[in-house]
Amino acid sequence: MSEQNQEDSKSVALIIIGNEILSGRTADANVQHIGTSLFRHGLPLQDVRMVPDIEEKIIEAVNDFRKTYDYVFTTGGIGPTHDDITARCVAKAFGVGFGRNEGAYKILMEYYGEEGINDNLLTMADMPEGVSLIKNSATGAPGFRIGNVFVMAGIPRIMQAMLVEVLEELPLGPQILSNTITCDLVESMIATGLDDIQQNYPRVEIGSYPYARGGINGVSLVLRSTDPEALKPATAETLSYIREKGGEPMGVGLQVAID
Amino acid sequence: MSEQNQEDSKSVALIIIGNEILSGRTADANVQHIGTSLFRHGLPLQDVRMVPDIEEKIIEAVNDFRKTYDYVFTTGGIGPTHDDITARCVAKAFGVGFGRNEGAYKILMEYYGEEGINDNLLTMADMPEGVSLIKNSATGAPGFRIGNVFVMAGIPRIMQAMLVEVLEELPLGPQILSNTITCDLVESMIATGLDDIQQNYPRVEIGSYPYARGGINGVSLVLRSTDPEALKPATAETLSYIREKGGEPMGVGLQVAID
Repeated sequence: MSEQNQEDSKSVALIIIGNEILSGRTADANVQHIGTSLFRHGLPLQDVRMVPDIEEKIIEAVNDFRKTYDYVFTTGGIGPTHDDITARCVAKAFGVGFGRNEGAYKILMEYYGEEGINDNLLTMADMPEGVSLIKNSATGAPGFRIGNVFVMAGIPRIMQAMLVEVLEELPLGPQILSNTITCDLVESMIATGLDDIQQNYPRVEIGSYPYARGGINGVSLVLRSTDPEALKPATAETLSYIREKGGEPMGVGLQVAID
Repeated sequence: MSEQNQEDSKSVALIIIGNEILSGRTADANVQHIGTSLFRHGLPLQDVRMVPDIEEKIIEAVNDFRKTYDYVFTTGGIGPTHDDITARCVAKAFGVGFGRNEGAYKILMEYYGEEGINDNLLTMADMPEGVSLIKNSATGAPGFRIGNVFVMAGIPRIMQAMLVEVLEELPLGPQILSNTITCDLVESMIATGLDDIQQNYPRVEIGSYPYARGGINGVSLVLRSTDPEALKPATAETLSYIREKGGEPMGVGLQVAID
């Protein structure tokens, strides 16, 4: 990662594991939730990989990302069936042993009770050596952390419960401030001026997202920065520019007022 | 890729480009549509990468994937604003020149007309040298193919229009047959037997997808194969096994009857 990134905040990447996502059977719902949660935490998500339930693919993705990013999240493949191979693959990626985790075993025994437990459920206590557990307030079976890798469930409501625990462990990054301006101009009409504004404010990230609703074409401009002193004039200039081009700014949402 | 893959069908991977996906501002809708369309075409999607609008990230992802997979699709970053940098990055990834494409220029002039066109819109005709165009029946501005890489729009309805054109160019892979069995057992109760069935039928891919609806826990088992002679007995054994465990198969959807 760039030096600027190291300075500003930690980098996070995500690996979504599961054939059902790639085949289209299941629509992924985790990228958006994790992206939004990390953004609010000041740790913008920087890269995502989606891989099938194939050992070498999972190992390669984990090893690639854990060397490149400060933190890596994985979702999927930690249930009790034959296609749940994530924990074993993470052990191989780290080159550590794999076996029954006593802490996870106790949690499962307590959650399911003597009558509810069985050998298949107990496979969810098989983890790489040396992990710390991630609490699952939704369905008992915990996720785990090893090194900079956080292994979570794929089912959204379970993943979301685990993510709350994970984010408590991670340092808050600098707050990312965001100003949004929606207007009724097509983006090609304002592209040149926007480019100039972007050049003048390198610490502000300007995104341009066209939309078409009810036959009306417009664009949402999103200005983001950790620096309010840069965001303020960049937003003000964008607003004047839109008006200069004959646009009517509507739906202006300013986290940082422009005076 | 494995030899089996080379033999069976071509491999496809996808790169989703755009800060708005990673920040959670926009929910990705392209992975599921592309995954489903490719699956029906007999070309299962094998890998996905989601990267921000950062030149080196895009170049790295394109070069990594185009060397690893038979075909690579990209979506996003080909509009007319400063944050649309995909075409330029793809030119750099291939080490070819970048400039006005005459075919794309004509299409844009025709679509927008003398009065509607402007310099910003015309930047959408700037492409790597040596591409072939991908028709866009939705909004005019074309995508392009260079080598094994297909560059498409990010807006779902435009991407979907382009994908129709792309799939016409690609050879059909072997049809993937799919049998689905839904039952009211929790997956941990049947994990052992399923694992045995999976071991016995290596050419069938068995996925186990638990669900909880209205307080009832159940599981959908999806058996997939290009070989009906393997899929048939694997499905029959799965059905008997579920009944043996006291489960009631419901919602059985068999593309391949089991006699």
